Amino acid sequence: MATLKDIEVAAAINILTAFAFFVAFAILRLQPINDRVYFPKWYLKGLRSSPLNSGAFVGRFVNLDFRSYIRFLNWMPAALQMPEPELIDHAGLDSAVYLRIYLVGLKIFVPITFLAFAIMVPVNWTNVTLEHSNLTYSDIDKLSISNIPIGSHRFWTHLVMAYVFTFWTCYVLKKEYEIVASMRLHFLASEHRRPDQFTVIVRNVPPDPDESVDELVEHFFLVNHPEHYLTYQVVYNANRLSNLVKEKKKLQNWLDFYQLKYSRNQSMRPSSKTGFLGLCGERVDAIDFYTSKIENLSEEIASEREKIISSPKSIMPAAFVSFKTRWGAAVCAQTQQSRNPTIWLTEWAPEPRDVYWDNLANPYVSLTIRKLIVAVAFFFLTFFFMIPIAFVQSLANIEGIEKAVPFLKPIIETKVIKSFIQGFLPGIALKIFLIFLPAILMLMSKFEGFISISALERISATRYYIFQFINVFLGSIITGTAFQQLDNFIHQSANDIPKTIGVSIPMKATFFITYIMVDGWAGVAGEILRLKPLIIYHLKNFLLVKTEKDREEAMDPGTLGFNTGEPQIQLYFLLGLVYAVVTPILLPFIIVFFGLAYVVYRHQIINVYNQEYESAAAFWPDVHGRIIVALVVSQLLLMGLLSTKEAAQSTPLLLALPVLTIWFHIFCKGRYEPAFVRYPLQEAMMKDTLERAREPNLNMKGFLQNAYMHPVFKEGDDSESDVASGDGNQEPELVPTKRQSRRNTPLPSKHSGSVSSLPEVQEHAQLL
Amino acid sequence: MATLKDIEVAAAINILTAFAFFVAFAILRLQPINDRVYFPKWYLKGLRSSPLNSGAFVGRFVNLDFRSYIRFLNWMPAALQMPEPELIDHAGLDSAVYLRIYLVGLKIFVPITFLAFAIMVPVNWTNVTLEHSNLTYSDIDKLSISNIPIGSHRFWTHLVMAYVFTFWTCYVLKKEYEIVASMRLHFLASEHRRPDQFTVIVRNVPPDPDESVDELVEHFFLVNHPEHYLTYQVVYNANRLSNLVKEKKKLQNWLDFYQLKYSRNQSMRPSSKTGFLGLCGERVDAIDFYTSKIENLSEEIASEREKIISSPKSIMPAAFVSFKTRWGAAVCAQTQQSRNPTIWLTEWAPEPRDVYWDNLANPYVSLTIRKLIVAVAFFFLTFFFMIPIAFVQSLANIEGIEKAVPFLKPIIETKVIKSFIQGFLPGIALKIFLIFLPAILMLMSKFEGFISISALERISATRYYIFQFINVFLGSIITGTAFQQLDNFIHQSANDIPKTIGVSIPMKATFFITYIMVDGWAGVAGEILRLKPLIIYHLKNFLLVKTEKDREEAMDPGTLGFNTGEPQIQLYFLLGLVYAVVTPILLPFIIVFFGLAYVVYRHQIINVYNQEYESAAAFWPDVHGRIIVALVVSQLLLMGLLSTKEAAQSTPLLLALPVLTIWFHIFCKGRYEPAFVRYPLQEAMMKDTLERAREPNLNMKGFLQNAYMHPVFKEGDDSESDVASGDGNQEPELVPTKRQSRRNTPLPSKHSGSVSSLPEVQEHAQLL
Repeated sequence: MATLKDIEVAAAINILTAFAFFVAFAILRLQPINDRVYFPKWYLKGLRSSPLNSGAFVGRFVNLDFRSYIRFLNWMPAALQMPEPELIDHAGLDSAVYLRIYLVGLKIFVPITFLAFAIMVPVNWTNVTLEHSNLTYSDIDKLSISNIPIGSHRFWTHLVMAYVFTFWTCYVLKKEYEIVASMRLHFLASEHRRPDQFTVIVRNVPPDPDESVDELVEHFFLVNHPEHYLTYQVVYNANRLSNLVKEKKKLQNWLDFYQLKYSRNQSMRPSSKTGFLGLCGERVDAIDFYTSKIENLSEEIASEREKIISSPKSIMPAAFVSFKTRWGAAVCAQTQQSRNPTIWLTEWAPEPRDVYWDNLANPYVSLTIRKLIVAVAFFFLTFFFMIPIAFVQSLANIEGIEKAVPFLKPIIETKVIKSFIQGFLPGIALKIFLIFLPAILMLMSKFEGFISISALERISATRYYIFQFINVFLGSIITGTAFQQLDNFIHQSANDIPKTIGVSIPMKATFFITYIMVDGWAGVAGEILRLKPLIIYHLKNFLLVKTEKDREEAMDPGTLGFNTGEPQIQLYFLLGLVYAVVTPILLPFIIVFFGLAYVVYRHQIINVYNQEYESAAAFWPDVHGRIIVALVVSQLLLMGLLSTKEAAQSTPLLLALPVLTIWFHIFCKGRYEPAFVRYPLQEAMMKDTLERAREPNLNMKGFLQNAYMHPVFKEGDDSESDVASGDGNQEPELVPTKRQSRRNTPLPSKHSGSVSSLPEVQEHAQLL
Repeated sequence: MATLKDIEVAAAINILTAFAFFVAFAILRLQPINDRVYFPKWYLKGLRSSPLNSGAFVGRFVNLDFRSYIRFLNWMPAALQMPEPELIDHAGLDSAVYLRIYLVGLKIFVPITFLAFAIMVPVNWTNVTLEHSNLTYSDIDKLSISNIPIGSHRFWTHLVMAYVFTFWTCYVLKKEYEIVASMRLHFLASEHRRPDQFTVIVRNVPPDPDESVDELVEHFFLVNHPEHYLTYQVVYNANRLSNLVKEKKKLQNWLDFYQLKYSRNQSMRPSSKTGFLGLCGERVDAIDFYTSKIENLSEEIASEREKIISSPKSIMPAAFVSFKTRWGAAVCAQTQQSRNPTIWLTEWAPEPRDVYWDNLANPYVSLTIRKLIVAVAFFFLTFFFMIPIAFVQSLANIEGIEKAVPFLKPIIETKVIKSFIQGFLPGIALKIFLIFLPAILMLMSKFEGFISISALERISATRYYIFQFINVFLGSIITGTAFQQLDNFIHQSANDIPKTIGVSIPMKATFFITYIMVDGWAGVAGEILRLKPLIIYHLKNFLLVKTEKDREEAMDPGTLGFNTGEPQIQLYFLLGLVYAVVTPILLPFIIVFFGLAYVVYRHQIINVYNQEYESAAAFWPDVHGRIIVALVVSQLLLMGLLSTKEAAQSTPLLLALPVLTIWFHIFCKGRYEPAFVRYPLQEAMMKDTLERAREPNLNMKGFLQNAYMHPVFKEGDDSESDVASGDGNQEPELVPTKRQSRRNTPLPSKHSGSVSSLPEVQEHAQLL
């Protein structure tokens, strides 16, 4: 068991690592050459232009202003300065609310930590149980519940504290739910007009022998919503077309690469082979080859586009139906249309960017079957993922490699390398699996048939959380694979399960403290460095970039990654709540994580990430629900732990806690969740009336006509203009935001009252 | 353990009992004096008048036509003859669909029984396991799974049969759900205009300092549903008034009693005492006393009525809001109105008869707290109800009685009486509790705040089912109180619980067979005799009845009693499904129950019961869900049983069954349940358009103005006219039904092609 000293050493190492990352970040971000890696968001919004065009030659790539290196941490206050309403304007409500998750962590755990250190640590510390026992123990354990003698009356403190912590957590959760719900409603009803406010997606349009899908949709809504129906847009099956477009883009990249190569070295026209990966096949002139291939593909794309638009077969039984008023859309989205509840399914259309086009045409029966298949697959993935990995591990041993590639034998047999391989190989299969896990979960969700990217990410996040809960949290406490645990749990009584886990909890505190420091501290600090995008950007920049536009494409701003990020945060909530009563010493580490992550992600959201969609914080019920789960788990485990301490009289009292917590959850669900699922008519009517008064002659039909068009159709024929027009149309609501931000954004330099050392601010000021 | 012979004896006894009930019924129902007990439904519909007025004196009371006694069982075919659409017209959709539950039982179990007897009985019978073992066993056990040797390959038969039975049950359930859903939609959209098609109930109207509730409601809906809103009716808090009216009715009964007494014996004016129950206090002239008291009360009622209508304080924050079209109502009922999802709650208004007026004004927070309280209370009721009963039992022993009433000691000490008391007393507290259980559950539901009687009955039925499942089903299999079971289950592993129960199941077959015969056969036959209403009617008839109207009031047609009846049926589904694979000999007994009950209840629904409300079969999702629960339970128990038989290789295969069954349930829920919760706009629009075309000048406002008035306000001031006008208004939709029924009802006599021996048909014919 680790002593306080071990923890100190680990903390020192991790703090140093985090510090090193921050220093590296501070230096790298000040170099103009990296500007597009660390401030892509501003480029995308058109508020920043490349620094490479101005100034002296060296100054274009390296920042020579030494003063700017001195205040290398002042991005932190800068990140915190942007007020929340502006942040919503700048990065969307999703991002702003995502940051609130970290704030909730701070709000919950800061008071709990103070209370725990003021009351529980003295209660635990002033015992001599561990000193008098024959057990080996560490100083950490002296601060934990393990130090209390069996059957002691001091357990009443823990019981009361469990109540206090629960009530505090619920209080914070309720407040926060209230705030987020009102933020969402305010955002949805904001004066800004968006196509999804007026549009409903209709799925499972029934086949009709006499009418085509588009006629059917038009007639149905003309009849059943006569006063509100405005227009519709059918959904084309454009999966093949979008594959062709992707293919063309790839070829275009190769062409660019060879053209750049030729322009640098005019003496020799580059050549390539036509076969697999350019490794085999006939040798041809690369530029000619790709030019002709692209031409062919362009023709194919044009004909495919023609075919889709003209053929009725490519119309899917789904449509986007738009209404004259928000009221009409709100009514249609919330009601059942047909006798048969599995056809004419209506729901709010996701934002145009957010639509996942491939899934729009699944019939009801297929959806339920897919749901079953995914549920079973996920069960096996969670509990039996170790089986294929163990199989791969058994293959990938030294002997196996020596047999497969005998000529490597002498190298492998070297002692150092051998031990390295033996230590490294078994883990590598697992590591690869864990890296690909989010992608696998995402694939599952896509197969299940959700129609918006935000829904896909939400459901993937839920699955990732379950996986982490079982395999990381439970897996670390009761060592063994998930399947072994499952087997144990089936053979244990409902009473024994919390006991088994509860008893192991205090012993694992040091492990989790280390985990928090590595994953939470150093990991978060590493996030800000963006090593992978940095390398990829410079590679692309070197190999492909010819014009400013190419450089824009080479940027990879990335997104928040809700499907992996949020479950990660939830693990900290779980650890914090479970250990709050048992081993309070763990709490400060969690607070540091929440604080650090808040600053880092706020900075990233302002300067880097470019959200692909806006779901108006639709994920908050999930976040809330998972914190509640963590709370209930912590209560059950405490019950299990206390029941082994012969503090039996307290267990019935603890039993009330999960009941109350679950009731609180039901209460919140009824009180706030509708705001995330439905859209109140009162709001819609208010907005409609206002709008009618202000813009009586508004051409709604023109506004909505092409809002929901498959992105492939929006792109121009020329690949050069693809991105520009595509992006422009894909994010229609960014246009006014740009104006606002330009007007409102306070310059950080002016606020801090000093001459800014940040080049981006200078750029910004120049632009204005 | 019971042998086949014991079962035969029990069967003989129960068949004889049932037979005796039927004979008694056949004789009693033919007596004109009992006509109102056995055919009240026809009186209520005005299709039958009292036979006491016509014919010779004796013939008025006793049926002297001996021919009619010969065919004493021909009420059975008569009950089956009325076709379903006519039954819906006659008794409502609820009753017609309720009968379908029995039909589902027959549809599921008849084929299963044939299959089980053709395949499983031979497989079980042709073993010698029990003969070679040292266990005592009965012939019944030889037919059951117990006779198969451990580890035998014959268990594959049971496995395959479990699959076949599950698929068959699911198939029947799906078909039936489909039929009931379409019956409901057809019923709701039938051409018949009903106020609840146009009306929505709004609850939690927020308080407003400037406007009263009625102004607020009018304004809110004028603004937010401008094109569809028609009118509203506020809800008055008339609980005190209705208590006064009830009180007055009771006094009126006493007055009638004394007046009748006086008219029979003119020599002495009756007198009574003013104190408690007429046992103490001053002696007064009874007629004068009650007359003056009723006068006072009438004045009080009048002033209270005045007060309620004039005072704004008695208006509750709820209202019935009516719309011009069904479409408008459907939209309002299915959408969220306000930003805050806990105010302006809208849902379909229940039928006027179905409204539970007392619960209309509960705010949201109070509702969720009540929910928590009731959930906890129900948990304790289910698992700990034995504690107070055991306490009462410990008090009510011989010694206790002797101490309390010492003068009875000599009598009690008599041997016969002593042993009788000792055998009887401990049971009596339990029996009383069980008799009052449905009422207790109903009280709980009322406290929880449901706003319609049908919802109250549905939720009570669910709780009653849970109670029966735990205390009757599990309680009989693993003997012991529910609390002991709970304690056992907590200390057993998830794996062991189905094993423990599964192993006991074959041994309890004979017990359940006896249970089915007593409760199912004799009990159902007893239902048709209506002993309690018979006695009460004759008592009332003798003591109170002066006029034909009084006699009408003395009738007690009763209702189906969904809250107790349906859980009872579900127990048979559970038994049937659990024993289908294990001990198929039990199945024929269940089939007899379903068949018999179907005939008996069909007769009762046609001739006796008067449904208090019409929920349009809103209970079907519950019925469906509970059969699914029974199916899953049977699968889990079979798994437990087989795992002890060392047929381990089959257990994983069985595991797929509950997964598939639950998936099937989710599928059905999505496919059919919306028909029971929402109202499709297409239907509403169709109906509205039709109606507009047919009756363009319809005065909807007049039709809806007073549809939802508290029943106390509808009753006239004179108690004589109370019932007449009250009933007339309370069931506005019965009026046209009456006409239809008169026109369409085919006379059973004509159908059967013989001279009818049923007096009601003759009456009926005379009326026409």
